[in-house]
Amino acid sequence: MSEPLPSDPCTLYVCTTCRDAADPAEGPRAGARLHDALAQALAARPGLPVRIEPVECLSVCKRPCTVAVASPGRWTYVYGDLDPAISADVILDGIGLYAGTPDGIVPWRERPQEFRKGVVARIPPAPVTA
Amino acid sequence: MSEPLPSDPCTLYVCTTCRDAADPAEGPRAGARLHDALAQALAARPGLPVRIEPVECLSVCKRPCTVAVASPGRWTYVYGDLDPAISADVILDGIGLYAGTPDGIVPWRERPQEFRKGVVARIPPAPVTA
Repeated sequence: MSEPLPSDPCTLYVCTTCRDAADPAEGPRAGARLHDALAQALAARPGLPVRIEPVECLSVCKRPCTVAVASPGRWTYVYGDLDPAISADVILDGIGLYAGTPDGIVPWRERPQEFRKGVVARIPPAPVTA
Repeated sequence: MSEPLPSDPCTLYVCTTCRDAADPAEGPRAGARLHDALAQALAARPGLPVRIEPVECLSVCKRPCTVAVASPGRWTYVYGDLDPAISADVILDGIGLYAGTPDGIVPWRERPQEFRKGVVARIPPAPVTA
């Protein structure tokens, strides 16, 4: 895979309070499991300019699991309906594409299927002001 | 009403491509009508530290109309299910409360009903970095 463009670091927020209907009463929730899977998958990709940050609730409670990706100068995207057991690598693939764009907008057909179907919202880049 | 705390300006993004099922084929879409209503309502509140910015698609297409509010150092919130005919003032009321907080988190019971029911997602403040 070719190296993405030089890029500002991206922050991948992972909702750790997301609960799956099948979650047992005890033990880590689906969101916490997704966070751990992402941290493990990221450790295998040292070149990816991503920092993972656990968050208590992204307010997308009806579509677990949920993540958001943000980066200076880029659109912020929120994704839901993510399966903690299988989606860590595809999320990182998508973030890698995002990190390779100047504005965060990856062409539709290049986006992972999980991002096309799971998009919850997007927010424009913050205005560049002091 | 008491003046809110000193606050950084807030940006209110309004999706102007949101289309209501009842929208006629011709004429402005529901999102564009909400944008106009908000601009008009804001003109009547010169003290509110809000800048309205129209956006082509916030990717919340199933829950029109949609807005997002962001501000340096504060959480970003995305809201949907907003009625362009009646919700401009309540949105500005909610943004006024938001602008009066240090972090953007308005206590739940103080939030307008439209924001409680219509919340789509929230994203943490961007890290303070150069």
